[in-house]
Amino acid sequence: MSEFVKHRQDSAAVLAVVGLIIVTILSVWKLKQFKYRLIHETGVAIFFGKDVFLSVSQSHPVNCVLSLPSEPCQSPTQQLCLLQETFDPEVLFNLFLPPIIFHGAYTLNQRRFIQNLGSVLTFAFLGTVITCVIIGACVYGFTRLMVLLGQAADGDFLLTDCFLLGAIMSATDPVAVLGLFSELHVDPDLYILLFGESVLNDAVAIALTHAITSYSLMGGGHTFDTSAFFLSAGYFIVVFAGSFLLGFIFTVITALISFHPLPNPLLETSLFFLLSWSSFLATEATGLSGIVAVLFCGLSQARYTFHNLSSEAKARTRQLFEFFSFLGEVFIFSYMGYVLLTFPHHVFKALFICGAFLAVFVSRACNIYPLSFLVNLGRTAKIPRSTQHFMVFAGLRGAVAFALAVRDTSTEVRRATLTTTLLLVCSTIWLLGSATGPMLRWLDIRLGSAQGLTHIRGLYTNRGAWLERLWGGHRYLKPVLTHSGPPLTSSLPQCCGMLARLLSSPHVCEDQEQLQETEADGTSIELDKVETQQESTGGNTEPEQQEDLLEGDLGLGTSPAPASEA
Amino acid sequence: MSEFVKHRQDSAAVLAVVGLIIVTILSVWKLKQFKYRLIHETGVAIFFGKDVFLSVSQSHPVNCVLSLPSEPCQSPTQQLCLLQETFDPEVLFNLFLPPIIFHGAYTLNQRRFIQNLGSVLTFAFLGTVITCVIIGACVYGFTRLMVLLGQAADGDFLLTDCFLLGAIMSATDPVAVLGLFSELHVDPDLYILLFGESVLNDAVAIALTHAITSYSLMGGGHTFDTSAFFLSAGYFIVVFAGSFLLGFIFTVITALISFHPLPNPLLETSLFFLLSWSSFLATEATGLSGIVAVLFCGLSQARYTFHNLSSEAKARTRQLFEFFSFLGEVFIFSYMGYVLLTFPHHVFKALFICGAFLAVFVSRACNIYPLSFLVNLGRTAKIPRSTQHFMVFAGLRGAVAFALAVRDTSTEVRRATLTTTLLLVCSTIWLLGSATGPMLRWLDIRLGSAQGLTHIRGLYTNRGAWLERLWGGHRYLKPVLTHSGPPLTSSLPQCCGMLARLLSSPHVCEDQEQLQETEADGTSIELDKVETQQESTGGNTEPEQQEDLLEGDLGLGTSPAPASEA
Repeated sequence: MSEFVKHRQDSAAVLAVVGLIIVTILSVWKLKQFKYRLIHETGVAIFFGKDVFLSVSQSHPVNCVLSLPSEPCQSPTQQLCLLQETFDPEVLFNLFLPPIIFHGAYTLNQRRFIQNLGSVLTFAFLGTVITCVIIGACVYGFTRLMVLLGQAADGDFLLTDCFLLGAIMSATDPVAVLGLFSELHVDPDLYILLFGESVLNDAVAIALTHAITSYSLMGGGHTFDTSAFFLSAGYFIVVFAGSFLLGFIFTVITALISFHPLPNPLLETSLFFLLSWSSFLATEATGLSGIVAVLFCGLSQARYTFHNLSSEAKARTRQLFEFFSFLGEVFIFSYMGYVLLTFPHHVFKALFICGAFLAVFVSRACNIYPLSFLVNLGRTAKIPRSTQHFMVFAGLRGAVAFALAVRDTSTEVRRATLTTTLLLVCSTIWLLGSATGPMLRWLDIRLGSAQGLTHIRGLYTNRGAWLERLWGGHRYLKPVLTHSGPPLTSSLPQCCGMLARLLSSPHVCEDQEQLQETEADGTSIELDKVETQQESTGGNTEPEQQEDLLEGDLGLGTSPAPASEA
Repeated sequence: MSEFVKHRQDSAAVLAVVGLIIVTILSVWKLKQFKYRLIHETGVAIFFGKDVFLSVSQSHPVNCVLSLPSEPCQSPTQQLCLLQETFDPEVLFNLFLPPIIFHGAYTLNQRRFIQNLGSVLTFAFLGTVITCVIIGACVYGFTRLMVLLGQAADGDFLLTDCFLLGAIMSATDPVAVLGLFSELHVDPDLYILLFGESVLNDAVAIALTHAITSYSLMGGGHTFDTSAFFLSAGYFIVVFAGSFLLGFIFTVITALISFHPLPNPLLETSLFFLLSWSSFLATEATGLSGIVAVLFCGLSQARYTFHNLSSEAKARTRQLFEFFSFLGEVFIFSYMGYVLLTFPHHVFKALFICGAFLAVFVSRACNIYPLSFLVNLGRTAKIPRSTQHFMVFAGLRGAVAFALAVRDTSTEVRRATLTTTLLLVCSTIWLLGSATGPMLRWLDIRLGSAQGLTHIRGLYTNRGAWLERLWGGHRYLKPVLTHSGPPLTSSLPQCCGMLARLLSSPHVCEDQEQLQETEADGTSIELDKVETQQESTGGNTEPEQQEDLLEGDLGLGTSPAPASEA
């Protein structure tokens, strides 16, 4: 009978979460309807979060759905117990974050992303490392000040702790960035720079956190340990490259399975979903980073497998991940509100927090301005000064920073890190999020309709095409994995003719003549072809994707449903 | 570090399940491609199931996703431990069964269902109770024979145990029935009779099982206990009515929320999903049957809320539940294969099993023939004799029977019940499933294209319309909850004019004049109006839904994707 009662309580607890998530969604929608633009939707989710989870924690731990150990915990320190046992932060990482990241990568505007690939990669990799180092150094300075002022003992904050905070805070958040641009229809290149950076730097931040944790486990602390440094740098590269590879392998499997048309869209969607999820699971099982894998899996699925899907399956896969991603977002931001207000072991170190706030803005400036200068050297259409200002301003932190911080709250320093992270995330979302509109107007950054802007082309040089030629893999892979792209018979040397014919899709071979006519245009031809094919096969892919992205602010944009789905 | 290793093992275990589910899906698809029609797809899922779960149980318990107590269990009786702790049968009930049942109800061809409502309800309610009683009595006879032959002690099998087996085995399975008709395109009325019955009798079987369990808990056993009987009969009614009511309440909430158009389809879909799930959770939290609630919620969502959704949201909700339902089916049938082959405490009682096999077929005949005679009294186009034979034949058992049997394996009798149920489910699926095609030809039941058959109309009388008039609620509810249906100003008495105008949708009031013109046709008018509106608003709803259903055999039908979704 106790089993029966427990089951009823579990159901009631999950019902409370579901019910209050419904209330959150409806409130955000109603607020938007009444044009309370100042209140950022992720902020509303955080605000309602406390009610959601408080009501649950007062009723019963939610183990039934959230897959956690179900020992009842009714001790006096119930709150911490609940935090750790009921809503294990691992759940964020294993269930809610992967679809968000995958969706972000999968719906990234491929053409514009590749056009800006060089700049995006520079900001995402170099920028994140710079941010991490500067935050770490700056916060370490403040912790030394705390020691001088007697607010902390000498061994309280190690250098690695500060760099760990740097790594945690280094990534800007795709969800928050999506929210930021809701209905604002900013310049699509500014959009792709910020959104591309925020999606990719999550992966960098996670790998950096892994590396710094392993460095501190190897005994690094106050002093610099060269061997441990190189080991953890190696670890960073292994995590990144390994996860990238595994994510890509699963894309290849999916593309090959869907190469011959599958009989119905449900089957295509199911296999697509299961194989993409497998990339996460396989990477986690090998001890690498599943989130990084799922990011690259999403990017490459959009690049290859997407072209093999039937038009209905294309719509279904996008909608499915959009759905999971939407629920994941609402849940994560609500959970953040809950932790902020109910975590019983918050450690407020004023100077530490001030240092972190200062460091976040300083590091953002030290990241954007020099790197913009650097990438502008290679761009014909430069990133204007006003755009740079806005990019510094738009450094919102979010779900990934929170998930990384909440993962380990075992020591005093880690708890201080969590508290600081939560305050930073909430203030960037609430303050910067609300100020986006006025800021854009003040900086005089052009706004327009999504429709109009998608037709602005050729403003920037093809840095991405240059990178793509450097890599060179795409032209060999695309005809093997999809029915589009230049045939291998033209890209492989003459001597490999037989092999090329064997591996190429027959459709691709038929298209060869057309291609040869236009090949005289030079090196940018490949990219253009990809674009036109995207348009012809995907049925108006570009505006559709653009629309999707703009709708993505917790899914509550007011743009009407695309007519093509009717 | 042990936490880290555990996480990796969990990921590997889930990966194994996901991987082998992918293999199952691909195998079923390939087998279909090579026209091995004899092998029924649910049979393949069961066959592969053993590999799926064996490989997992040898690696590690899967707690991470399946939300169960995570104490490691490496004792010698590991198998039972795994069965109980890793794949808790409750997971079937709480995660996988609800979307299957909801999807079945939600995509039921509404018009044809209502046309045949009288017959379907007769088979589902009266038929299931008859089946339960006959199986119970027949098996009880066999257990007395076992006692006489010395194969069992006198107190081993109580009368309630036999009736419990009867309740468990009384429901035919919608998933198996969907599979049965894959690509056969049988007469749509035969289809709706069998499918409607199989969806509704699940609810009856679950409520019956509840009632019999509570009867035996109240001390009923060998002898008949009048008060306990009436109490459990009351319990049956309370469970059924209560669950029905709760399911319906959540439909009303969803319909009212979506009454005013929501800004985008993602929001509509999310709210629709969360509220439908809430109906399950709320019902479980009150101690009633969530599956029954979700069934009625699905039926009524299709009847009311569906009309309030935008056309994209209509497609999205259907596709979402189709997806969950598909994965749930593959999982449940695979799990069945696993339990059949690895459960270490199978209890094979030859006479008990023989009795159950005999009883299942006898009870099916005693259910279909007399009830067909009964409903034929009221039908102008009778259910022909050949169709009746086929309905007796098509008594496949499946997921619900299994889930009910596997829920409790604490005693010897319960384990014998599980073993018998598994054998019955597998043999009906493998033998009857394979023989469907030949049987249909032998009985000379008309086959045709889905397209052609959906246009056969008016063959049967409107028994459903008569029932609907009896209930009478629909004409008052539809204008309140949706923008279609006769306005309240015409259905409510004159004195309630103000109230009627207040509650009716303005669209409905505008349509009133049109309605009044056609009202002379009499009582069937309301239904016809619903139909025409379904067609005009839903954009070719009928063939779409029909197609969906026929595709539903584990989703592996070969019919092309509907062009309207492109």
